[in-house]
Amino acid sequence: MSIERVCVIGAGAIGSLYAGHLAAVADVQVLTRREAHAHALNEEGLRVSGKSERHARLRASADAGDLDDFDLGIICTKAPDLEQTAARLEGRFPAATMMTIQNGLGAEELLRRHGSWKLISAVTFMSGHRHGDAHVEYELDTATWLGPYAEGGATYELARQICDLLLSSGLVAEAMPDLRPAQWSKLLFNSAVNAVAALTDLPHVREFAGEREPADLGHLVHDLIDEGRRVAQAAGIELHEDPWEMNVRAVSVGETQHGEYAHLPSMLEDVRARRRTEIDSITGAVVREGVRVGVPTPLHTALWRLVRGMELSWERNAAAPREEARA
Amino acid sequence: MSIERVCVIGAGAIGSLYAGHLAAVADVQVLTRREAHAHALNEEGLRVSGKSERHARLRASADAGDLDDFDLGIICTKAPDLEQTAARLEGRFPAATMMTIQNGLGAEELLRRHGSWKLISAVTFMSGHRHGDAHVEYELDTATWLGPYAEGGATYELARQICDLLLSSGLVAEAMPDLRPAQWSKLLFNSAVNAVAALTDLPHVREFAGEREPADLGHLVHDLIDEGRRVAQAAGIELHEDPWEMNVRAVSVGETQHGEYAHLPSMLEDVRARRRTEIDSITGAVVREGVRVGVPTPLHTALWRLVRGMELSWERNAAAPREEARA
Repeated sequence: MSIERVCVIGAGAIGSLYAGHLAAVADVQVLTRREAHAHALNEEGLRVSGKSERHARLRASADAGDLDDFDLGIICTKAPDLEQTAARLEGRFPAATMMTIQNGLGAEELLRRHGSWKLISAVTFMSGHRHGDAHVEYELDTATWLGPYAEGGATYELARQICDLLLSSGLVAEAMPDLRPAQWSKLLFNSAVNAVAALTDLPHVREFAGEREPADLGHLVHDLIDEGRRVAQAAGIELHEDPWEMNVRAVSVGETQHGEYAHLPSMLEDVRARRRTEIDSITGAVVREGVRVGVPTPLHTALWRLVRGMELSWERNAAAPREEARA
Repeated sequence: MSIERVCVIGAGAIGSLYAGHLAAVADVQVLTRREAHAHALNEEGLRVSGKSERHARLRASADAGDLDDFDLGIICTKAPDLEQTAARLEGRFPAATMMTIQNGLGAEELLRRHGSWKLISAVTFMSGHRHGDAHVEYELDTATWLGPYAEGGATYELARQICDLLLSSGLVAEAMPDLRPAQWSKLLFNSAVNAVAALTDLPHVREFAGEREPADLGHLVHDLIDEGRRVAQAAGIELHEDPWEMNVRAVSVGETQHGEYAHLPSMLEDVRARRRTEIDSITGAVVREGVRVGVPTPLHTALWRLVRGMELSWERNAAAPREEARA
C-alpha cells in the first residue's frame, strides 16, 4: 500500500506545518473547525515561512462529509478537542490509517472507540506559530517520532512509509517499532515542564533546572520527573530519553543560542489565552497510570488539581466581581 | 505595669484597625513607612467605618527616632517587611513589650535578634480595607488571639492586660497561656488556603472543600492540611482548632450569607498586585518545621516552590517580551 492521499485534521500550528509541507509530495486535504478557515485555505493556499518556505495548494473543508477518501489522516487537534474530532470522523474513511500526535496518553484508545482505522502513534517536537488562517511560521524544525500503535493493526513497515513521506516533504521524522519509550519520555518531560510553567507563568527558563537553594524550582521539576519515572518503570516502559536531561538540555540550549530566550510551553500559551489546557491528557495521564500500576503520584496529582483549579477560576472570576473581601 | 501608651508599627489595614480603635482608650502613636502617610494621619486623624465607626486623633511619624516612649508596640508590617521594621526599632524602647501579629511562624525569633523587648505572640482573624491613608473599613470583626511568647520574657498576665485593652477599645480578643496551638491552626489553614488561592487565582470558594471527583481541589487542601498536621504533631503542638474544619466552615459561611461571596486570601491579593507574598513565612515555615522534626512535606514544598516561581515570573516576564517562542 502506498500513501498518496493525506488528510490533515485540525489546522492549528502543527497541522498547518504538516499540510504545508506534505502538499509538495502528496494530495493533501485539510479538515478545519471553522468555515472561514477552510475558505481562506481554498482561496489563498497555505504559506509556510521560517525554517522552510512553501506555498501549498490544497483543498480544505469544515465538513467531514465533503472530504474525499484518503490513505493517511494526521489528527492534529488538541487533546481536549479530540473526542469531538473523533465523533466527526466516526463511520468514515474505514480504509484510512490515522496518526495521532496529541500530547499525553490516551489519544489512540479514544480514537479506537470511534472507528477501526489502523492507528499510528506519534509525538512531535516541532513548533510553529500561526500568523493567520493561511500562514504558519515554522519555528523549531525538530522531529516527529512515530510507530505502530500496539492494538492499532498498523505495522512498523507502515510507520516507516509515513516517515519516508514526512522526510521527503522536508520535515524531520523518525520511525520506531515501539513508540512508547519516546512517548513516555515526552509525557514525563511535558507533565513537569508544562504544569510548572502553567502555574508559575514562567516560560521554560533556566530556573527549571536550578537546584541550588531549597526553594529552587529545579527541585520540583526533578521530583516530578522522578515520580513519573517510577510510574513508567512499573508500567514496563524503558524511557527513550531521560526527561530530566531533556529539561536541562532545553534550557541550556535556550541560554546559549538566544541569551534570555525561553521556550513558551503550549500549556502556558493556553493559560494566557484562557483556553482549556491539556492537563487531563498529560499530568492527568500520569496520575491515572500511577493508579493503574499502583505507584503513588502525590506531586502530579497536586499539580493536576491546581491547573484544574486555575481553569475553574476563569469561570468563577468572570461570574463574580474581583474585589469581594480582603484578608 | 499598666499599658497606657501604644505604638502601632505599620499602618496597613490591620495596623489601622488597631490604631483607630485603641486611640479611644490609650495614647496612640503610629509609625508609618511613608512620610505622606504620617502627614495625612497627623492632619486628618484616622477614620474607621464598617463594623465600627470611629474618628481617632493620633500622632504619626515615618521616623522611629521621632517616637515617644511607649508601653506596647503592635507590629503590623507584613512578614516580608519585618526584618526592615525590626532594624528600624533596634536599640530603641527597651522597656516596651512588642506584640507580633504576622502570618506564619518566626516573627518573634526575628524580632528577638534585634532587641530584648518582652514579646507577645498574636494572630488576628479580623480584616479590613484601606480606602486611603486616613480611612480604613472594618470588614470582619473577628478575634485577635494573643499569648506570651515562650522565650519572650512576657507573662500570661501581661497578655491578659493587653487583651483587656483591646476589648475595651471595641475589638474582639482572647488571651491564651500558650498561643502556639492557635498559631499553628491558623498557620496550617493559611498555608493550604493561601497557597492554593495564589496559584489558582481562586478566592476562597466552596471548591476548596469539594472532594467528589479525583481532580477536585478539596482533596489537595485536605492533603496539605493532613501533611501540616503531621508536622504539628511531631513538633508537640496540639492544634487549637482543626484547620480542615476551619476551611469547610469558612466556605460554608460564605455560601450561606452571601451567595457567591468568597473571601479573597491575602496572598492572592498580593499576587494580583504583584507584591512579594508571605509564602516563605507561611508555607515555607511548615517546610522548615518539617525538616526540623523529620516529617516529609512534599506538598508544602511543591507549593512553596511554585509560589516562589510565580514571584520570579514577575521579574523574568517584565524583563523579556512575552511572545518568545511557541510549542
